Amino acid sequence: MRIFCIVKYVGTSYKGWQKQIGKPSVESTIEDKLSSIFNETIKVVASGRTDAGVHALGQTFHFDVSRSITQKELFKILYALNRLLPKDIHVLKMDIVNDDFHARFSSKSKEYLYVLNIGEEDPFMEPYCINIYRDLDIEKMKECAKEFIGTHNFQNFTSKDEDEDNYVRTIFDISFHKKKNLLIVKFSGDGFMRYMVRNLMGTLLQIGENKIDITDVKNILNNKNRVIVHYKAPAQGLYLYKVNY
Amino acid sequence: MRIFCIVKYVGTSYKGWQKQIGKPSVESTIEDKLSSIFNETIKVVASGRTDAGVHALGQTFHFDVSRSITQKELFKILYALNRLLPKDIHVLKMDIVNDDFHARFSSKSKEYLYVLNIGEEDPFMEPYCINIYRDLDIEKMKECAKEFIGTHNFQNFTSKDEDEDNYVRTIFDISFHKKKNLLIVKFSGDGFMRYMVRNLMGTLLQIGENKIDITDVKNILNNKNRVIVHYKAPAQGLYLYKVNY
Repeated sequence: MRIFCIVKYVGTSYKGWQKQIGKPSVESTIEDKLSSIFNETIKVVASGRTDAGVHALGQTFHFDVSRSITQKELFKILYALNRLLPKDIHVLKMDIVNDDFHARFSSKSKEYLYVLNIGEEDPFMEPYCINIYRDLDIEKMKECAKEFIGTHNFQNFTSKDEDEDNYVRTIFDISFHKKKNLLIVKFSGDGFMRYMVRNLMGTLLQIGENKIDITDVKNILNNKNRVIVHYKAPAQGLYLYKVNY
Repeated sequence: MRIFCIVKYVGTSYKGWQKQIGKPSVESTIEDKLSSIFNETIKVVASGRTDAGVHALGQTFHFDVSRSITQKELFKILYALNRLLPKDIHVLKMDIVNDDFHARFSSKSKEYLYVLNIGEEDPFMEPYCINIYRDLDIEKMKECAKEFIGTHNFQNFTSKDEDEDNYVRTIFDISFHKKKNLLIVKFSGDGFMRYMVRNLMGTLLQIGENKIDITDVKNILNNKNRVIVHYKAPAQGLYLYKVNY
């Protein structure tokens, strides 16, 4: 039987989603608790990884259990699971799905948020945003963001270790929302490679701080020579917001 | 020369405001940084202590320096101080004041907030609120709060170790604000003894969960026999909001 879950987590204390020997990961924390609840070894499959320190408001995963479960029983399991999990991980939803549903391969698009504090530093927001100390030219950032929207080869905006057959992705939208001291930048697209959102955000920040020009960005976007940007924005302001199916 | 400061801090990592040998305190952290900036031993005097884990949005303190400083210089010192302080402490304001101003004795009233999460648990709010798992009768809590407003002997709502000459305090207001999943309870009064806000909040929660009646509260309020309540609400939802002068 296949179960689909939506999970929220604060990434601060974890070396990312993915299991790594001897290091705390969100994946292994959840698998441990599910395995003890179901009394069998549970392996979870997420929509994708998140880097060390990256947060999630709506990460998704599925897993299979050998015995059959009712939706009603699943409510109790969800309750028990959240009692067992540490306070920085909270499963929002658990649903029975068809066996052909796959948290990664069935996903149609993903949405990420970057939270930037453009005002005075706030100790309470410290683990949840990146502080921007310089004035940002937000209009110029919006203009640059338009260059990224659409279908492009994003080879130079991914990790140098990323080795994909195809570096082409489609970005549906990049939108900017101001909320008091915060500037929230929302990225939606059909898929994001490793470090891609962080490099896009980092590039937009370089633009906003007038360190590079939009022509510099045009020169590396869709460029099949690997001239990877080194503007990776910090993980702690990044949130996997939503996975759409 | 006397300097007045307003400071915001996340209390999670500190054993409270007050210095304690071998334990991290907000007071000693600030004194250390000020002493190194001014190159002399600085002692700070706060509006009052906060317990271990209690947060502050507007704690106040003053300190004296032997040399004279201009307000302009003070801006630079504020900037330097915030660079030196850990990210969970942030000084908002630094002003030159008269020598007869006293952060504690000059204060006219104080305001505290209690942040209660009455909805689904939220990993991001976890260090910043208390989770309420039962339904609360908020109307009954408001009714009980009215009993506390005014001038009363709060002996039974303070720490058993508290040994004051006078347990009479005046509460100006207790107000309730709902904001999405959060219920924020604001206490304002001329002064609060040790554990007083926590015991008042704890008592209101007992009322809200229908565990005790308002008559029980009336029996211990203004009662000169020590029948101290044992309903201390957790520190992590409490904020010293404002000190009025």
